[in-house]
Amino acid sequence: LDSGRWAPVKRQLASLNPSEVAKLLAALPERERNLVWEMVDPADDGQVLLHLPEDVRDGLIRQMDTAELVAAAEDLDIDDLADFVDSLPETVTREVMRALSDADRARLEAVLIHEPDTAGGLMNTDTVTVRPDVSLEVVMRYLRMRGELPAHTDALFVVDRYGVYLGRLALDRILTRDPASTVTEVMDRDSEALAVDMSERDVAQEFESSDLVSAAVVGSDRKLVGRVTVDDVVDVIRADAEHNLLSMAGVDEDEDLFAPVRRAARRRALWLGINLCSAFLAARVVGLFEATIQQVVALAVLMPIVASMGGIAANQIVALMVRGLALGQIGAGNTGALLRKEMLVALINGLLWGLVVAGVTSWWFDSPTLGFVIGLALLLNLMFAAMAGLLVPLMLRRLGLDPALAGSVIVTTITDVMGFFLFLGLGTLILL
Amino acid sequence: LDSGRWAPVKRQLASLNPSEVAKLLAALPERERNLVWEMVDPADDGQVLLHLPEDVRDGLIRQMDTAELVAAAEDLDIDDLADFVDSLPETVTREVMRALSDADRARLEAVLIHEPDTAGGLMNTDTVTVRPDVSLEVVMRYLRMRGELPAHTDALFVVDRYGVYLGRLALDRILTRDPASTVTEVMDRDSEALAVDMSERDVAQEFESSDLVSAAVVGSDRKLVGRVTVDDVVDVIRADAEHNLLSMAGVDEDEDLFAPVRRAARRRALWLGINLCSAFLAARVVGLFEATIQQVVALAVLMPIVASMGGIAANQIVALMVRGLALGQIGAGNTGALLRKEMLVALINGLLWGLVVAGVTSWWFDSPTLGFVIGLALLLNLMFAAMAGLLVPLMLRRLGLDPALAGSVIVTTITDVMGFFLFLGLGTLILL
Repeated sequence: LDSGRWAPVKRQLASLNPSEVAKLLAALPERERNLVWEMVDPADDGQVLLHLPEDVRDGLIRQMDTAELVAAAEDLDIDDLADFVDSLPETVTREVMRALSDADRARLEAVLIHEPDTAGGLMNTDTVTVRPDVSLEVVMRYLRMRGELPAHTDALFVVDRYGVYLGRLALDRILTRDPASTVTEVMDRDSEALAVDMSERDVAQEFESSDLVSAAVVGSDRKLVGRVTVDDVVDVIRADAEHNLLSMAGVDEDEDLFAPVRRAARRRALWLGINLCSAFLAARVVGLFEATIQQVVALAVLMPIVASMGGIAANQIVALMVRGLALGQIGAGNTGALLRKEMLVALINGLLWGLVVAGVTSWWFDSPTLGFVIGLALLLNLMFAAMAGLLVPLMLRRLGLDPALAGSVIVTTITDVMGFFLFLGLGTLILL
Repeated sequence: LDSGRWAPVKRQLASLNPSEVAKLLAALPERERNLVWEMVDPADDGQVLLHLPEDVRDGLIRQMDTAELVAAAEDLDIDDLADFVDSLPETVTREVMRALSDADRARLEAVLIHEPDTAGGLMNTDTVTVRPDVSLEVVMRYLRMRGELPAHTDALFVVDRYGVYLGRLALDRILTRDPASTVTEVMDRDSEALAVDMSERDVAQEFESSDLVSAAVVGSDRKLVGRVTVDDVVDVIRADAEHNLLSMAGVDEDEDLFAPVRRAARRRALWLGINLCSAFLAARVVGLFEATIQQVVALAVLMPIVASMGGIAANQIVALMVRGLALGQIGAGNTGALLRKEMLVALINGLLWGLVVAGVTSWWFDSPTLGFVIGLALLLNLMFAAMAGLLVPLMLRRLGLDPALAGSVIVTTITDVMGFFLFLGLGTLILL
């Protein structure tokens, strides 16, 4: 690329599918990215943009003019278009809407009125429906007349004359059952439709637990309004997982590894600032014991150990809680049992590593009393860490906040403050 | 449950599907879990066990006798059975193998010879194949004779007389095209089959980027050996994401929130022990400056700030790198550009927060010199953090190690050690 020879790049690009092109673009520094973007087949623009991380997408969109954006939007499915429209400037959205056929505009509006993180926001309106009283023979004739089915159609939906959802008719049943039988006889009535306002996380769990490829979405009147397909669910699962990973480490989930320096710096600054407040709070606690430290400098040498062990222990539990809460495994019914278990785990590891630390410290500073102080402080801090690691995510969840986002920084503050306070406090009481 | 009234529990259980039962079991403390497990319909045992976290599954399997385990195994698909067999004691595996029909045993063995984390280990052998020269009419007659298709069959696979994979024939094409046309005319030749030794992570990326529901798996001779379905891929994506989240926090990915105390304590102990070594190393560095601290106790009060800010900044980058490496976005070609970018980000945030820390410290301790020392130490430590956060995951990957697992603890050690060394070292040089 650097050598400026474009022809081979262009040939290679043409052999990639849109999501592979998106992956390539996301992996390029900004200058190269813009050059390659120019070479992408305009017919793929829409799909490629959709597959890009939000950050990169916004950057490229800013450089495109309205005509290009409208053209890019034209090749998208309605559900993808709904996602895409969210990233566009207001004026471009109006242009895109105007360029659509009436039917498509009505469909797009039907998707846009739903919250993006619900079944309604995820769904597509390209359902293929049949009536319950016709025979499979007739269904097959209808399908042949209709031609190509939308992607990920593993089943048709059965609706009555008012559009109320009755069940699904899997394609493989149409092919394997007696053509003379009616849809009613063959259809699957047990497969529940998703409510249009179901959260996307619940939708994903439903897909996972029932191994679905597509599912009907119904309004509050039980009328069929669209369908969710497994490819969108995979995106939800992936995004949710990345959110947890990045949030726990204090990074914005939309941050792109190749984001412009200024934007990356601004986004990470926030978390560093929050951590700085937490660190100053911990320093304040250490400051209370200045006199003690002056007399026993070994305390200053050893105090990071107690704090850091507490932080690790607490974050282990936060990670397990974030996963457990996401999977819906934790409720009022088992919090008590969990807390007892974690306190016991902390007691065991506190005793084990407390003894090790006490031993090493006694030998290093030739002071069994100092060893006793640090061992006891470590044990107690691990107990506090267990409580904080378990209860903080629960409380955040109850307050409607995201346990992954704030959990880690709050429990680390608690274990730092408690770690310094316990160790220096015990040191003051016992050593002076 | 506690009140001992079982009938309603049993009724409720019967209304859940196996993966919901598994979720319920995983959320129960051990005693209640065993009670509920007794009530699960034995016909569902196999499916429920499969959906459980490994920890919980192993616990329940230990309590079942061979006959129960063989019965549980009987209802499973071959690919699920292959997973299941991994959890069983050797003797039980032999029993299970003996209970299978010859054909199923041959199929199971075909799956078991492949590594579990490859396409071969993920695949099922329940492919439905057709020849290229027959008409759709004939295909439909064959399907009606054959009856019900395996779950997630969105396409049949086209093979020649030697079993070599030629392409796929989507069910919706069978339904929508002219029945007189031949398979050759209608089939999709462009869809590549997966190689049997492709890693499961690459399989997942292929499914995501091409929005697949099922894909053919072929051996090195291009012969069809099985197929991978999207439900298994979703499990891979979920497991991979959980692995990253939990590994970064120092928890074993198989750890169950409701694991028995002893097992949980043992698993977390390892990580705490590794962290303890790292903490002692940092303490050793602080110990080098005992004399300095004795003279300027404020250094001890403030030193955790420098270390902790470095740790946060480095872990932000580690999380981005873990995601980027998992998505295959990072290669030799863009490492240089990334490093330049991250160093710049660190410079900006180092200057910003360095100034803030310097200001607060000057005011708190009434010493602009001390403020200068901590501001400079913070700036430099953030630069080291950027280098470590970027290069350590890359090196681990190159060594074939998992960046998520070891990355966090290594970079935190580096930023702690550097933080203390820079701050106390500069303090010694400038303040004394």
